[in-house]
Parts: sequence; structure tokens; C-alpha cells
Amino acid sequence: MVPRPPETTAGTWPTALTAIEANKILVRGYPIDELMGRVSFGNATYLLLTGELPTPSISRLIDAILVGFIDHGVTPPPTLAARHATTSGAGVSNAVAAGVLSFGRHYGSDVGLCVQLLEDGLDMAGSSMLFASASADLAEHLVQRDRIPPPGFGHRFHTSDPRVTRLMQLAHELETEQLHTQYLRALEHALSRHPALDQERLPINIDGAIAAVCGDLGLPKGVAEGLAIISRVPGLIAHALEEQARHAPMREIDLASHRYDGPAERHLRERR
Amino acid sequence: MVPRPPETTAGTWPTALTAIEANKILVRGYPIDELMGRVSFGNATYLLLTGELPTPSISRLIDAILVGFIDHGVTPPPTLAARHATTSGAGVSNAVAAGVLSFGRHYGSDVGLCVQLLEDGLDMAGSSMLFASASADLAEHLVQRDRIPPPGFGHRFHTSDPRVTRLMQLAHELETEQLHTQYLRALEHALSRHPALDQERLPINIDGAIAAVCGDLGLPKGVAEGLAIISRVPGLIAHALEEQARHAPMREIDLASHRYDGPAERHLRERR
Amino acid sequence: MVPRPPETTAGTWPTALTAIEANKILVRGYPIDELMGRVSFGNATYLLLTGELPTPSISRLIDAILVGFIDHGVTPPPTLAARHATTSGAGVSNAVAAGVLSFGRHYGSDVGLCVQLLEDGLDMAGSSMLFASASADLAEHLVQRDRIPPPGFGHRFHTSDPRVTRLMQLAHELETEQLHTQYLRALEHALSRHPALDQERLPINIDGAIAAVCGDLGLPKGVAEGLAIISRVPGLIAHALEEQARHAPMREIDLASHRYDGPAERHLRERR
Amino acid sequence: MVPRPPETTAGTWPTALTAIEANKILVRGYPIDELMGRVSFGNATYLLLTGELPTPSISRLIDAILVGFIDHGVTPPPTLAARHATTSGAGVSNAVAAGVLSFGRHYGSDVGLCVQLLEDGLDMAGSSMLFASASADLAEHLVQRDRIPPPGFGHRFHTSDPRVTRLMQLAHELETEQLHTQYLRALEHALSRHPALDQERLPINIDGAIAAVCGDLGLPKGVAEGLAIISRVPGLIAHALEEQARHAPMREIDLASHRYDGPAERHLRERR
Repeated sequence: MVPRPPETTAGTWPTALTAIEANKILVRGYPIDELMGRVSFGNATYLLLTGELPTPSISRLIDAILVGFIDHGVTPPPTLAARHATTSGAGVSNAVAAGVLSFGRHYGSDVGLCVQLLEDGLDMAGSSMLFASASADLAEHLVQRDRIPPPGFGHRFHTSDPRVTRLMQLAHELETEQLHTQYLRALEHALSRHPALDQERLPINIDGAIAAVCGDLGLPKGVAEGLAIISRVPGLIAHALEEQARHAPMREIDLASHRYDGPAERHLRERR
Repeated sequence: MVPRPPETTAGTWPTALTAIEANKILVRGYPIDELMGRVSFGNATYLLLTGELPTPSISRLIDAILVGFIDHGVTPPPTLAARHATTSGAGVSNAVAAGVLSFGRHYGSDVGLCVQLLEDGLDMAGSSMLFASASADLAEHLVQRDRIPPPGFGHRFHTSDPRVTRLMQLAHELETEQLHTQYLRALEHALSRHPALDQERLPINIDGAIAAVCGDLGLPKGVAEGLAIISRVPGLIAHALEEQARHAPMREIDLASHRYDGPAERHLRERR
Repeated sequence: MVPRPPETTAGTWPTALTAIEANKILVRGYPIDELMGRVSFGNATYLLLTGELPTPSISRLIDAILVGFIDHGVTPPPTLAARHATTSGAGVSNAVAAGVLSFGRHYGSDVGLCVQLLEDGLDMAGSSMLFASASADLAEHLVQRDRIPPPGFGHRFHTSDPRVTRLMQLAHELETEQLHTQYLRALEHALSRHPALDQERLPINIDGAIAAVCGDLGLPKGVAEGLAIISRVPGLIAHALEEQARHAPMREIDLASHRYDGPAERHLRERR
Repeated sequence: MVPRPPETTAGTWPTALTAIEANKILVRGYPIDELMGRVSFGNATYLLLTGELPTPSISRLIDAILVGFIDHGVTPPPTLAARHATTSGAGVSNAVAAGVLSFGRHYGSDVGLCVQLLEDGLDMAGSSMLFASASADLAEHLVQRDRIPPPGFGHRFHTSDPRVTRLMQLAHELETEQLHTQYLRALEHALSRHPALDQERLPINIDGAIAAVCGDLGLPKGVAEGLAIISRVPGLIAHALEEQARHAPMREIDLASHRYDGPAERHLRERR
């Protein structure tokens, strides 16, 4: 508990997001009905979170982030929390809430922590830009402080996560400074060479890639974390609806025995 | 509590959403890294929820739904629940969960109820397609059962919601049967003429428009409700981040005294 | 969404729970510091929910309800949702929220539904008090409507739940009318004799017993449901803390392979 | 995300809380039906969280903690989050979850932080037990680090919180070492004398008192935080039920204009 804050001027408190009048809704200044049908959901999300619409290339990157974290099958803790809420008979919004609540520092919420780690690492490197040296120092520091795996590194299943490769490649095509993604790669390399660490075990994970790309886009860590949350909500809903449709209530959700019975691998045609 | 369900075959339980192997992730069969950068978040959401990618015109409609419900300023209950979570010092994911939890039958969750209402109304109308007559009967039924406002009708601020007009117009451009949207309009008309009801008070609201459009697209009510939830998550995050950035913790959030200080009204240039 | 309600008189809205002044807190009229050390938590809970302190015999029954539903090992959906939230690194309050969210109509929230079922059954029986006949009719109705198991009946593990036996026995010692508990027993009997039902499968469960006892105490269904929620919170916290203390983060929580390693069976000495 | 943890022995994972067999439930070894009617909810809570039943004097203190934080009227963030969830039409369990989610570092969750602060302070004091000196150093440290108010200090309304006085008095009657409560008082004194701080503004609050008493009882910070959560759940439910019973859905909950209309101040007779 904290002491009561001083009153804001004239007894009013400001908000800069959405103006509401009777029969009129302005999102960051734009009439919402003008945005509908003209602007994608990814772009509207960026507008709401940052104040401006993205350029086309940033738009594409934001969508790639949002698509990349949209689902990861049945095993992530948020997905299982959502399925357990559903098996008790609770509704879809409860499943989403239970899932989002299960974004902790080991899953999902490490996006914000990784943004912070990269900012700290870049501060250590300073204007020298000697990432190899700075990241080796940071790796040593992390080992000493028992912060292994660091946020943004390591995965239960993937040693070379295809989402990371793809997101880094898309970011590379953008004409922005790429200090965060470069630093992330340097740190991955430093970790792989650290004598105390098993070199295979700490690949960049998707949380780390999202953090670095958001850092390069100048997005604060709250926005990076927010994008990860937004991204996963369709996945949580899909699992809740599948649980309702295909499984008996109050079943034991035995992790070891699920099997995938969806479509076989397929590929996009020439689209867009 | 229910009795234990019979075992599924061979001790396994199926899921058709996302297949995970080491270094490979297939969402409804598509490699996720192939979707990244090629498919919008709205399209990936549709894919995950329905099993297939949308046609371009459906894609545009899904994005319009998602953009249309993205935020409604500071007064909706989910937004205020999110801001109260934030003022206590809880993180962004908690704000989202508190917000999503506050989707009840009067706000947000009425999307699913409205889909049901429209299905029931269309059942009553049967093959006759005499919507004027059927909807007048349904209006009478709703008045008798004290179900006024029905789900999908009425708004605290808007008498003619610009989002509804726009979404109905976009749906009209689609070449699908439009029974649900037509029925919704017929029911609005019947309600406006019912002698027991104040004719100004029950316009179609955005929840109703989303329900009808999803009905016309053949989406089940769980998906319609899910789209409403997905849509609002960026808004909840934006309010949480603004609360963190601009306001003291533990403040009293006095609804009567907020003011908008964002950009003045502005318009899209020729985009897309 | 519903139309804006009419203003309450004089722009104020009432609350009858707790009065706050500087350095003074009155819960239902009692200074909170006077309650502390003199009144048990169960009694303070009853005071807050109903407006008055309980008699000693009601007090004992409320505590029995709260103790009876406090934990049920690792398999209930709320417990697993709480453990999944914890394994991701989220904090104790998140685990509690994820657990409470997982009270659906098949678990926990059936307490309120069962109160309703009993009220309906007693209405059907009317002043005749012919519970055998009325409950047979209700059993038939439930079978016809495919509402098997009804709320308050059936359990995954227990055919004769010791908590039910004990709670019914404690309720029996009270000098109140016991229509709800009698009706519940009559309905259990009717279900066991219904030809379409396997007679072993639908014992009264603890949710049903709580519902009936609350009905006999004249507590509304919201309070009955509330007591079930309150009761389980210590269990959710205990599982979250045990998960933090004894298990690695991001583990797969495989239901089939847990084992109990706590104290062997023991008994209370002469206490109280 | 972290690498997959090594398998626990024999593919099983342990839990020491509650053993379940058909028709048998042992909580920390005690048959639950034996606890029902013989052990209070506060004692069962202590048993579940710590492994043993409390002594009578500890039992009284635990109940005093649980009663002391049970409700604080309409203004705390968790209460408002719960009321906003309810006004949207969401159910009681959602209101509880939204409330518990709103335990952040400024409200509720500062209990755990304050336990940590006291442990750190006692470490600094070491065996010297010179609390005046050590707490002055800690106060200086907190001011320098801009950690004012520290967890456990300051309140929006109360300058001398009656709950704190009462809880400290009850703790004083116990025959345990009271280092944490003594240190808390010493730190309050040091803060009141620090030249940079307004001496009236930083009284011990109830979170601080709970933290110190739990520290003296040897309860870890997770348990202290857990007790605060358990304590408030009845309050959240009472507000949700009152909101349902007395207020229109979708109302604007205007903080500035509530009024208390419950019973006037009254006092316990000779009880116990």
C-alpha cells in the first residue's frame, strides 16, 4: 500500500487511447469505422499500443511475431491451464484468463525480461560495439549469478527453432539498426562457448527472438510482452473449443498420451 | 462432478491443432515459419480456429471484426478491471486476465448468446423466410420473458453505432447468404415497434453485429465469442501500459473525471 | 451490453458490508479489531456473507463445510490449473486465480446449480412432503432431459464419500428443518432405482452435500457457491507452494505418475 | 523457457499434501471427515500449509490474521476489479479471480516483499540485535534506493491502523521470539525520524503486520502471502454478491459517491 497520490490537475485524469462520444469512436484519432475493412488487426494493434500505424515493413514484422507465437500444441503450461479450466465446464473466457495467468518468468513473461537483458548487455557494450567481448562478459556474469538459462534462451523441444530463424531473417530485411538481434546472436554464441555450459542446450528461443526484434523496433518491454500475450490468445481459444468439442468433461488430461490427428503437412500456394 | 469417462482408444487423446516435433511446428498442417511473413495474424487466427485459411473477402471481414472491438475507451468493465489490477502493481498479463474475466453476459459474452438467439429466431422463421413476422413473434416472446435488452441490442452511449453500420456494410459486400444479419435487422425493427419498448433504446450493438456476421460465415458461437475476446486483448494491454506509464499506483480511478488528451481526429490516407 | 441504468438517488450508491473511516473499520457494524482474536475466520466469513454472526451450532457446520472441501489431492482441474500456472513461474496469486477460474459446472460451480435443483424439487413436492414420489418424478425428468449426472451427484473416485456422510451427520445434529438434505437423499435413492441408470454410479458428492446443507441453513445459492470457493483457496495455495518447493519449473505434470509421500494416516487426540 | 528437467526417480513425482483413495481422503495424514466438525477452517488451513496443526495460541493468531484482512470496503483495487467483473454479468468465481489477480506489489503482494525486507534487515542487524542502528541504516538505504514507501508501510486512509495495533498486541501475548515484529517497529521509528520523509506518512500497515507476525511464527513468505490471499476471498465474494443483489448491471461504479448503509457500530457480547 502506498500513500494517496496528489490529485491530478483539475480533478481529471488523462487517457490518450480512444475517444468516445455518442455514435463516434476515435482510436488514436482515427474513426474506428474508417479503420475497419482498411487496416489489419495487426496494424490496429500496433496503432493502439504505440500511437501510430506501422510502415508496411514493420507491419509485416509485427504480424510475423503475432503469427509465430500463436500456438505450440498441447504441452505449454498456459495451454494446459486453459484445458483444465475447460474440462471443469468453465467457459472460453475463463480458459483464456487461466492461460494468460500462466505466463510466468519461465514461459511468455520472459519476453520482457529478455528485453531488459539485451538493454543491459548493450549498455555494457557501450559505443564500442564489441559484442563478442561484451556478451562473453555477460555470459560469465549470468553463469556466476546462476541465471542459466537466461530469459530468451533454451527450449524443451527445439535445438534450432524454425520460428527464431524465420523471425530473425524477416527482421534482417528491415532497414533499421539491428543492435538487439545482433547482440542476442552474440550472446547465444558466447553461451555456447562457455566452459560451464553444455553447448547444445541454450539456443535462442522464440521469446528471445521476439524480445530482440521488438528492441530493434524501439518498442518498450511492456509492448513486447503484450505482443506475446496477444499472439497466444487464439491458441488458447482453439484449445478450449477443441476440448469442449472432442473430450468428455472432467477427464484426466494425461500429457504423455496425446496424439496429433489433424491435417498432414501442407504448404501455402502462391498467396498474396 | 461427473463419472470418469471411458478411456479413449489406445490410451491416447487426439488434438488436430498443432503438431510439434523437434525443430518443426505445423499449425493445421502448415509449417509455422512458412506462415510467418506471408499470412496476417487475422488469417492465422481464422486458420487455427476453423482449420482452413480464409478467402480474401472473409479475411477482410474477420479483420474488420477484430479491429471493430479492439477498444472502447476507459469505461467498459473489462477495461476498468484491467486498470484496477494494474494500479495495485500487478503485471500486464494479470491485467489481461482480469479484463477477460469481466466478459459476462452483459458485456462481451453476449456475442455467443446473440448467435444462439439468431439461430433460434431463424428456426422459428423456418423455410418461410418471413422475417418480419417471425421477428415480431420473437420480440413479443422476449418482452414476455423479461429478456430486454436481448443479447446484441442496446448500448450505454451509442444510438447508432458506427461499428455496426460499417460491419454490416462490409458483410453486405460478401457473396454469402445473409440470413443472420437480415434477421438481426428485422428483430431490431420489431423491437423498435413493440408498444412496450421505448423505440430509441435498443439499437443493434457491436456484439450483435459480430454475432450475426459470424452466423452468416457459418462460424459456431464459440468462435464468435472467441473473436470478441481476441479483439479486445490489445485494448486491455494498451490501458494497462498507459496506467503504468501515466498514473500513480493505488490511485482512485474516478470514472466521472477522465479526459481524452490523445491526437485530434485524423483520417487514413489512400492506403492499400 | 445493456442501456445505462437510471441514476441512483442523490448520485450515491449504497454498500452495507464494511464502513471505513480514518483509523476505524467496521465489518457489518463490528470494529474489526474487536473481531480479531475473538471470532474465528469461519465466523467472520459468515458475518460478512450473511450480515450476522452464526450461532455456535451453525458456526460448527460452516467450518465443517469449509474444511471438507479444502483439498482433494492433485487431480481436480482447479488444482492442475494452479500447478500449471506455477510451473511457468507465475506467482501464488496467479495460481489461485487460475484455480478459481476452473470452477465450472462440472466442478465446484455445480454447488449453486444443485441448490437450484433442490429448490425446484422441493417446489415440485410442495406441501405434500412426499419426497419419494416427487424425487422419482425429478429423476425421470433429469434422465429424459439428459441431465445425468445431475449437479451434486457422481464422483470420479468415491462411491461413498466420507465427507458427505460426515457433513450430513453434522447437519442432522442441528435443530433446523432439513428439507434440502432429506430431499437430496430421496433423489439419490430415486436415481439409484431408475432403470436407465447404473445404480452404483451416482452417489451424492460433496458439492451436493454442501448445497443441501446451505439450503437447510437458508443460505442463498451465491453464498453456497462462495463457501465452496473460499474453502478450496488454501488447497490451491498449498499446491502452488509445493510445486515451487519440490519441482523444477516447466516440468511436464504427468497425472498418471504422482505418488503421495506425506505422513501416514494419523488421528486427532482428544482436542477441544 | 528452460531446458527440460531431468526425470524424477522412477517416473513419479511426489506430493505430501493429500492422499486420495476410493472413499478415503487424508489431509496431511488426518482423515478429512475426522477434521470436519472438530477442527476450525483456520486450523485446517494452517495444517495444509505447514504440515501440522497449530497450538491453540498460534491458532488464535492465524485466525486474527485471516479476520484482520477479510475486507476493507469498496475502494481497494481487488474489490473494484471484482465489482467490475460482476457488473458485466460474470459469476462469483470470476469476481474472485479478478480480485486475486489484483494483488500486486502495492496491495496484498507486498506481504511477501515485507517478509523479505524484514529478513534482510535482521541479517544486517546480525547477532548484535541493535535494531535501532540497523533499522536506521536500512531506512537510509531505502530512501537512497527510492523504495519509499517500503513494503508494509503507508496507507491511503489510516495513520494508525487498528488492525496493526491489535495484531501486534495478540502476537505479543505469544511466547515466541519476536524479532520480526520488533524490527518492524524499529524500522517504523527510523522512517519517522528520517529527515527526507514526512514523519506522519509511513505507519506500519496491515500487510506489514501480517508479514512480521508470520516471520515470528517461522512461516515462509509464500505462506504469509497465501494467508493474505485466503483472508480476502470472503470479502471479494461479499462484494460480488452485493453488486448482483443491489445494483443494475453495466452501471458506472463511481468511487467518489458510495455511501455505507449497513448496521451502525455495535459490539460483541461476552463471546467465546
